[in-house]
Amino acid sequence: MSRVRVHNFSVSLDGFGTGEGQSLEAPFGHAGQRLHEWFFPTRTFCSFHETQGDSSGSTGVDDAFASGWDRGIGAEIMGRNKFGPQRGPWVDEEWRGWWGDDPPFHTPVFVLTHYPRPSIEMKDGTTFHFIDASPAEAVKVAQEAAGGLDVRIGGGPLTIREFLAADQIDYMHVAIVPLVLGRGERLWDGLEGLESRFELDSVSSPSGVIHLTLSR
Amino acid sequence: MSRVRVHNFSVSLDGFGTGEGQSLEAPFGHAGQRLHEWFFPTRTFCSFHETQGDSSGSTGVDDAFASGWDRGIGAEIMGRNKFGPQRGPWVDEEWRGWWGDDPPFHTPVFVLTHYPRPSIEMKDGTTFHFIDASPAEAVKVAQEAAGGLDVRIGGGPLTIREFLAADQIDYMHVAIVPLVLGRGERLWDGLEGLESRFELDSVSSPSGVIHLTLSR
Repeated sequence: MSRVRVHNFSVSLDGFGTGEGQSLEAPFGHAGQRLHEWFFPTRTFCSFHETQGDSSGSTGVDDAFASGWDRGIGAEIMGRNKFGPQRGPWVDEEWRGWWGDDPPFHTPVFVLTHYPRPSIEMKDGTTFHFIDASPAEAVKVAQEAAGGLDVRIGGGPLTIREFLAADQIDYMHVAIVPLVLGRGERLWDGLEGLESRFELDSVSSPSGVIHLTLSR
Repeated sequence: MSRVRVHNFSVSLDGFGTGEGQSLEAPFGHAGQRLHEWFFPTRTFCSFHETQGDSSGSTGVDDAFASGWDRGIGAEIMGRNKFGPQRGPWVDEEWRGWWGDDPPFHTPVFVLTHYPRPSIEMKDGTTFHFIDASPAEAVKVAQEAAGGLDVRIGGGPLTIREFLAADQIDYMHVAIVPLVLGRGERLWDGLEGLESRFELDSVSSPSGVIHLTLSR
């Protein structure tokens, strides 16, 4: 049974999944890289940048969670704001995402947008498709593309909220980062009673991050 | 050196320290008792209701945190909404708090209000005083009454936020409860960058609660 999963989604103590003021130079707005500093030292993240399999990086609690992100995943769905900083009709179709020529996904990636455009084929299995779809419709399309494997919802916060509200998510790993962002996009808004649909579990990491899982 | 401390302050995953709609029947509004269920089984809470010292209750992680609440404390400061559900000028001076004849404080308690009224002496050392004061002024008054001991800020969320914003708090224990309340009074609002003034640490309890401490 194909499941829909969220991994490595970082929020501040006050529940913001990204900061205010996204731009080309600041994908997470005023949050900068602070929500993801726990992730960078992990072996999982380090492996994104290695070509010869000579892995470095930490293999403790943080990596135990981080490493689950691509296991058994056959497709990703992401919100348009995760793909890029443009809003409204595409004025620059040259934009191919934040990740360079070889994005780490290596599966089909469905970008939710009200302005569909031609697909973009990147290296090693990553293809960006652009679809205008409800959460349930998007999951259906992605599951077909995933060939029986699981589908990952990649964010941002608004996209995850919409998929949670539509009851489309089966597993979610959230990293609560010990900082107070104050402003940005909240993860939990409009989800009163969410806990009743999941088993919740948590563990603190020596890095200061709290790993929270919601499973069903 | 007298310190100012917060203990056993529960917030939901989405950061609410109390629910919406406080009333005489619902001190925490629609949250009911859900924010405090982790606390009730502890030996610390059970001891509030025992007269003979024949203690029952759990003595694990939750009680390790819960039990610190009165150690070395000589006075409490609380917001008016923690004291009772009335707003504006006092229409019912018969109200003596939610805690019956023998509140668990056993120290002077300073209730912040724009409508001062005569003090109320309860059993075994608890006296409610009503003062109209800024956070810094209230701490000064409470420290004098505490005779060199520490001062506890008892809540609610708005009061703690004001004391944090005024940089009056030295230690804070927050219990993050795995539920999404959706509405109520937020703890962290307006406190961007708070983490820079504290060391943060956390541990998960088997009860599902995450105990977070902010120390300096």
